Amino acid sequence: MHTLKSVQMLIDQTLKNQNFNDAPIELYKPISYMLSLGGKRMRPALTLLACDLYGGDINKALMPALGLEIFHNFTLIHDDIMDLAPIRRGKETVYKKWNTNIAILSGDAMFILAYKYLAQTDSTILPEIIEIFNKAALEVCEGQQYDMNFETAKNISIPDYLNMIRLKTAVLLGASLMIGAVIGGAKNQEDKKNIYSFGENIGLAFQLKDDLLDVFGNEKKFGKKSGGDIATNKKTFLYLKAFEIAKGKDFNKLKDAFENTDEVEKINSVKDIYNFLNIKKYTEIEMDKFYQKALTHLDLINLPDIKKTELKTLAENLMSREN
Amino acid sequence: MHTLKSVQMLIDQTLKNQNFNDAPIELYKPISYMLSLGGKRMRPALTLLACDLYGGDINKALMPALGLEIFHNFTLIHDDIMDLAPIRRGKETVYKKWNTNIAILSGDAMFILAYKYLAQTDSTILPEIIEIFNKAALEVCEGQQYDMNFETAKNISIPDYLNMIRLKTAVLLGASLMIGAVIGGAKNQEDKKNIYSFGENIGLAFQLKDDLLDVFGNEKKFGKKSGGDIATNKKTFLYLKAFEIAKGKDFNKLKDAFENTDEVEKINSVKDIYNFLNIKKYTEIEMDKFYQKALTHLDLINLPDIKKTELKTLAENLMSREN
Repeated sequence: MHTLKSVQMLIDQTLKNQNFNDAPIELYKPISYMLSLGGKRMRPALTLLACDLYGGDINKALMPALGLEIFHNFTLIHDDIMDLAPIRRGKETVYKKWNTNIAILSGDAMFILAYKYLAQTDSTILPEIIEIFNKAALEVCEGQQYDMNFETAKNISIPDYLNMIRLKTAVLLGASLMIGAVIGGAKNQEDKKNIYSFGENIGLAFQLKDDLLDVFGNEKKFGKKSGGDIATNKKTFLYLKAFEIAKGKDFNKLKDAFENTDEVEKINSVKDIYNFLNIKKYTEIEMDKFYQKALTHLDLINLPDIKKTELKTLAENLMSREN
Repeated sequence: MHTLKSVQMLIDQTLKNQNFNDAPIELYKPISYMLSLGGKRMRPALTLLACDLYGGDINKALMPALGLEIFHNFTLIHDDIMDLAPIRRGKETVYKKWNTNIAILSGDAMFILAYKYLAQTDSTILPEIIEIFNKAALEVCEGQQYDMNFETAKNISIPDYLNMIRLKTAVLLGASLMIGAVIGGAKNQEDKKNIYSFGENIGLAFQLKDDLLDVFGNEKKFGKKSGGDIATNKKTFLYLKAFEIAKGKDFNKLKDAFENTDEVEKINSVKDIYNFLNIKKYTEIEMDKFYQKALTHLDLINLPDIKKTELKTLAENLMSREN
């Protein structure tokens, strides 16, 4: 059985050995750049661990797993244009380092590369792999569109928000696992649905953890300035929950705090109100709900518990992480 | 045997019946809009005719054919952002009608839809179809990158230009035919290469015809103002040929003409020099070279000539077209 650490090393090593340096360099350089910025390699790790769960040969899942990592990085390149984000993983984003046109086009090329890697699998399971992937990829676009809509929309509910992060983030974790399981030999439809739902719920918990870290994370450990979501009035779970439960004077204080034009004051005063309203606790409860749901789906998979250890460890790590 | 007209009608009808109206509408509306703008539906027509050439059931090729049309339209959405083009087929481009972010994201979603349609084929041939498509799609991106590079690059040669249009335009025609042939039952590798090369060379001739029409086309018939390429100093075959053969005083005249800041004067004076230098003739000779090469590849396909009639007609139409 492979460990999370060992599959992550294998992924990093294999990714380093790929050659993305074709001509024209303006198209391919941003692709190698983006992939060299690192990251948790969570999606391909899930694919390999799910393949291993079924006793499959993880080398057979390696190229499709890289395809999922390449796809994820492509979405980041395009998202960074749309969000005007200057920094990604401590480095300049592609559109900042080059320009928007190059970021659009090298993103498109990267997307095709994702399919090229994904298609390196047994032809008998290719239609199923492509179908799982297409569905998730389209949902990721839908999630990004909702995310953009929410910037200006009024009356976003918590279920709206949860659905948005489900689409934008969670479904790809589900799909990464499901694809790994199929390559590993999973045949039972219920099992496949359960491993997908394990990933989807872990993804929801993961995003709530991200929202929490953005406000309450240790800046040094989290690797970025905290309070970014507050500064940009992002309608996260914390924001929506706070406005939901704040009444009367508290509601007005919260509203005023978000309208403060001094960024440092704004972040501090919103944090104070979040603390007063116990928002951290509410978020942790919601997060834990999804985490427990994820574990239930993992339990339901018709395989010995001992085989599920690494996936459980990965889920625990994601929940207890500080970055 | 199906005719070009009948397959085009089938494509238009089937496309109209597709439902691209999912939520969120901001993501899907631009997709239906773009696909409703019309166009020659050349790529899917090639797919169906190539399938028919092999005696295959064109209904089996219909969804993959739509996939190719959807992909082509996706590239137009993103190209229009990069080229700052306000008008496409007489209507506002997607990024103008909505905004750049929506054009990026609905383009991405459209790209996934292209794969979804493409994958609706027998699983036995799916790996081959995906491989042909991925290669062409990546080359289309490379072509677009070269096209952008050429805007500011010096010393572009005619072979550079031909390679750029081969990638940006011609390979997708080759791939559309090859995919149709595979669905139709083509097994012989040489035959598949020949139908691909038929398309590739038709594509090169097609683009040269486009360059010609941009300068010498009848505005009413061509549907857009002539001289656009001259106005923007686009390094087309005509431009490059003119600078190649103009010597001494003529060279300087050509240079001066392109530097004229009055657009109408500029277009007229460049046209005059093109006429004087016989550029139309040179372009037609080059175009005919590719057209003849295309026909040779069509001849080489190991099937009775009578079956090739519609593809020949389509090629003739593309050459004699006035829009």
